[in-house]
Amino acid sequence: MSQPTVVTVGADMFADAVAGQAVDVERVDWRPPMPGTESDLATVATDARRPEANRRAVEAMLGVTAHLVDVAPASEVLGLEKGQFLHAGPPITWDRASGPLRGALMGGAALEGLVDDPEDAVALFESGSSVTLEPCHHRSAVGPMAGVVTPSMWMWVLEDRATGRRTYCSLNEGLGKVLRYGAYSPEVLTRLRWMGDVLGPLLQAAVRGTDEATDVTGILTQMLQMGDEAHNRNRAGTLMLLRDLSPAMVASLETGGFAGKDVADALRFVGGNDHFFLNLAMPACKLALDAGRDVPGSTMVVAMARNGTDFGIQVSGTGDEWFTGPAQVAEGLFLGDYGPDDANPDIGDSAITETAGIGGFAMATAPAIVRLVGGSVPDALATTRRMHEITLAENPRWSVPVLEFQGTPTGIDVTKVCRTGILPQINTGMAGAVAGVGQVGAGLVTPPAEIFPKALAALAARVPT
Amino acid sequence: MSQPTVVTVGADMFADAVAGQAVDVERVDWRPPMPGTESDLATVATDARRPEANRRAVEAMLGVTAHLVDVAPASEVLGLEKGQFLHAGPPITWDRASGPLRGALMGGAALEGLVDDPEDAVALFESGSSVTLEPCHHRSAVGPMAGVVTPSMWMWVLEDRATGRRTYCSLNEGLGKVLRYGAYSPEVLTRLRWMGDVLGPLLQAAVRGTDEATDVTGILTQMLQMGDEAHNRNRAGTLMLLRDLSPAMVASLETGGFAGKDVADALRFVGGNDHFFLNLAMPACKLALDAGRDVPGSTMVVAMARNGTDFGIQVSGTGDEWFTGPAQVAEGLFLGDYGPDDANPDIGDSAITETAGIGGFAMATAPAIVRLVGGSVPDALATTRRMHEITLAENPRWSVPVLEFQGTPTGIDVTKVCRTGILPQINTGMAGAVAGVGQVGAGLVTPPAEIFPKALAALAARVPT
Repeated sequence: MSQPTVVTVGADMFADAVAGQAVDVERVDWRPPMPGTESDLATVATDARRPEANRRAVEAMLGVTAHLVDVAPASEVLGLEKGQFLHAGPPITWDRASGPLRGALMGGAALEGLVDDPEDAVALFESGSSVTLEPCHHRSAVGPMAGVVTPSMWMWVLEDRATGRRTYCSLNEGLGKVLRYGAYSPEVLTRLRWMGDVLGPLLQAAVRGTDEATDVTGILTQMLQMGDEAHNRNRAGTLMLLRDLSPAMVASLETGGFAGKDVADALRFVGGNDHFFLNLAMPACKLALDAGRDVPGSTMVVAMARNGTDFGIQVSGTGDEWFTGPAQVAEGLFLGDYGPDDANPDIGDSAITETAGIGGFAMATAPAIVRLVGGSVPDALATTRRMHEITLAENPRWSVPVLEFQGTPTGIDVTKVCRTGILPQINTGMAGAVAGVGQVGAGLVTPPAEIFPKALAALAARVPT
Repeated sequence: MSQPTVVTVGADMFADAVAGQAVDVERVDWRPPMPGTESDLATVATDARRPEANRRAVEAMLGVTAHLVDVAPASEVLGLEKGQFLHAGPPITWDRASGPLRGALMGGAALEGLVDDPEDAVALFESGSSVTLEPCHHRSAVGPMAGVVTPSMWMWVLEDRATGRRTYCSLNEGLGKVLRYGAYSPEVLTRLRWMGDVLGPLLQAAVRGTDEATDVTGILTQMLQMGDEAHNRNRAGTLMLLRDLSPAMVASLETGGFAGKDVADALRFVGGNDHFFLNLAMPACKLALDAGRDVPGSTMVVAMARNGTDFGIQVSGTGDEWFTGPAQVAEGLFLGDYGPDDANPDIGDSAITETAGIGGFAMATAPAIVRLVGGSVPDALATTRRMHEITLAENPRWSVPVLEFQGTPTGIDVTKVCRTGILPQINTGMAGAVAGVGQVGAGLVTPPAEIFPKALAALAARVPT
């Protein structure tokens, strides 16, 4: 006689009643889709192009290897001119900009000599006559936190050698009172000037003088085996970068006219900043995701970015359109006496790491991060497992040893997010809400739920009838 | 009415029968003690000195912080003279020495100019007239694998500043064809000469020129959060060492008369050898364990070491006596075409890491290591949990994030090993059995069980009556 097995879906009451009669129950975890998405879900889910389009988008993304090929000023590699400012996230104007973005723009204006005192830049940006704001993403760049890039800032240049495509990111300043967290005090500007005068040129000499270009994608592979998730832990990555560049930095002493003190200072600066590699992880993720853009019918998210006011996503099948909603305030741990009231809403292009399947999506491989962003170790493991429910693939090059080398959950699917209601998990630094404050903490945050139904609607509107 | 709960011990049959009647069962994992140890266990377990003695030994061990204070030739810091050779493990003579130990001694004799051709050293060691063999441990030193130290080799010098005690270890050569695995070809000797002529002096200049002495114990704390268990994974540790020493290495260009090429070569050599830090982890562990020596009544193991023929342990309560048995062959993964028949029995002082609670004891924090030494990720997690059953303490400074920051299992208790039959888990490199071959693989191994009852008997004999 065969035993009956009952499959139950949804609420537990029925399953419990059946189990109480000693019948085997297979429980299926089911939740209703996000409200109002039923019709668009039906349209997009039955779009015949979707499986192949997503396969192509994923394959293109996973096929990219990012090599570090140069370091150079933004004026040279991005054609950025005096008065042009890049910033993180979707497009925004000064009047809607949050405190940390304003603070970073004010500091950037002083750095470029547009004003002597950063405070004087407020009038400049309010008038808007000689300055422009533009998202980093619109110039193949990404910027952490405020993400402000000015012409004199030196940029990492990453290249996909198969296609020649390039992405860019500024050099990381460290933590605390730094421009990207909205601080603009004299110490911030002094550090930025040293980075422009010494660190940038020295890194350029080292990158140009290193025989084999550093494989940033490969370093990310190693980092995930070394407790880094490459968003808020970049310790091992930073150390591997130092390992790869330091011999050529030493060689530049004899060939490039640098002083021993400059090289020693640079080694100490990079070695003392565990987040230094973040600014290479981010453009490596963007380089991969950009390869998955513009595939008609693909529901894969290719960018998640925040400007401190709005959270925006872009999706492969909908071109350059941003779907935006209000950025949320992270929950987490605070520095010193700061608390939740001091924190600005979510800001920065760094969620490009989660978009590519690392950062919050790979927290299982970096359990020590809970000491920085909060939560528990079991939460960190569960988060990575949960993200597999809303992604299209596992990345075979980026694996999580403690999950028996399972690939990271990669390629967020707008359809799956709307279908399950599970939101992408991001871990992030928190900037002070007031311009000039700098970092106040780090924590966990999600996008505003509403942007996924918006993207789904746009995808549905493009499905051929 | 209260439900009955039954506590069962030992075999499962009774527990299963009770559980079958719907009674709650609390199963206690119980095994008989090692055969023949019952009487000694009763004597040692009831020794009134034991709890306090072990508390003192553990506290002394955990209280040590190892600082890197110098790098200098063995002739200077150990007073080693021409013809004197140190080796890993308990004392042994040439006639009982295994292939890799013989190979390393032959190469060492050539390095010191005692012979021109390493093959000619066989006669030298057979005669024994102008050469002596002595364990590293007898000179406050430790050596990985064959562990051969000769007067001209440069040694790391670690110090416990609270007491001025010091320990020593040679510089790591890398993997494959290297002296410590028993290889002695010209490339091996050329590398050792470069290490003596360039690397050693340069590291000495860097260590002496670094303002704040490197805290090796603190680096070990960080490594355990970065996927290293500090025996067969030392990647993060090696990178942190480079970070700490490279600025002073650069400064030595101007003050120490070194060439830029030497510094760049040294940075590449260290950066290209993920095991470089092992030779700092080992003496840091010895420095801590030595503080726990010679506490009357303590059953804590203070050294586990192998010479390729014998596996020996020393115990706090029994002074310098070695308890030895035959070294076992590891099970694991092999390089190239090598297989189990090519492997020498277990060799090296590196099991000092397990003695101190890392290495095999901390495999849970380094799941990627199963790709090197074999086994599975669940095994790695289970191993660390199991080692808590035979240890006296958890190390608050060395924690395992994925086990919710539980301290590593520290201080092997001879009593607990005999009582449970659980043997310490060691992970290890495998040397070829034939002198000259070098490394053939890496794997997992335990001490021979018999040495723990031997140590227990010696402890029992010292219990006051």
